[in-house]
Amino acid sequence: MFAQTPEPPYYAVIFTSQRETADDGYADTAERMVVLARQQQGFLGMESVRGADGVGITVSYWESEDTIKAWRQHAEHSLAREQGRKRWYEQFQVRVAKVERAYGQAATSQ
Amino acid sequence: MFAQTPEPPYYAVIFTSQRETADDGYADTAERMVVLARQQQGFLGMESVRGADGVGITVSYWESEDTIKAWRQHAEHSLAREQGRKRWYEQFQVRVAKVERAYGQAATSQ
Repeated sequence: MFAQTPEPPYYAVIFTSQRETADDGYADTAERMVVLARQQQGFLGMESVRGADGVGITVSYWESEDTIKAWRQHAEHSLAREQGRKRWYEQFQVRVAKVERAYGQAATSQ
Repeated sequence: MFAQTPEPPYYAVIFTSQRETADDGYADTAERMVVLARQQQGFLGMESVRGADGVGITVSYWESEDTIKAWRQHAEHSLAREQGRKRWYEQFQVRVAKVERAYGQAATSQ
């Protein structure tokens, strides 16, 4: 689940959301969007968690602002976002941020 | 659960983690850290989700790099992080990022 990102700088899109209760086609589209995103130029990785209460945080990582904009303009992704606004999300917030530094602990280092 | 952040720019600390199975004092300390963080100068909000598989994403928002550094140097937080590395997290990643733009849909707008 951990994204294998390069040394900063790179970009993060932080997507925080509250899902509606009904699936209503959400799961299939969400899965398709992950497949599509991984094919985009500049895509570096993705981390995603949703709790039992329907609150989720997905962070996707990108090489540049331009690659984020290109993904945003992708026709199928645009349609999915429109459905998300209308049908799947009670509330959401998107934040685009430039990652300046990063550090961590890998599972193998223990 | 949604953080009420001001207009960008501001900073985000994206903390991705895989918890160990045993609680081992984790929940009490995690709760205490949230209380403490909210008291820090420059703290803007926090969003946190953990899935059933122990994978979690917590994003905290801060006015500036300096306020992030001050929180990092807080004695009780430093001790908690040390315990986290040794006892609570199998793996984690921290990314510090400057939020450049943000948009969303509030629950009341539907």
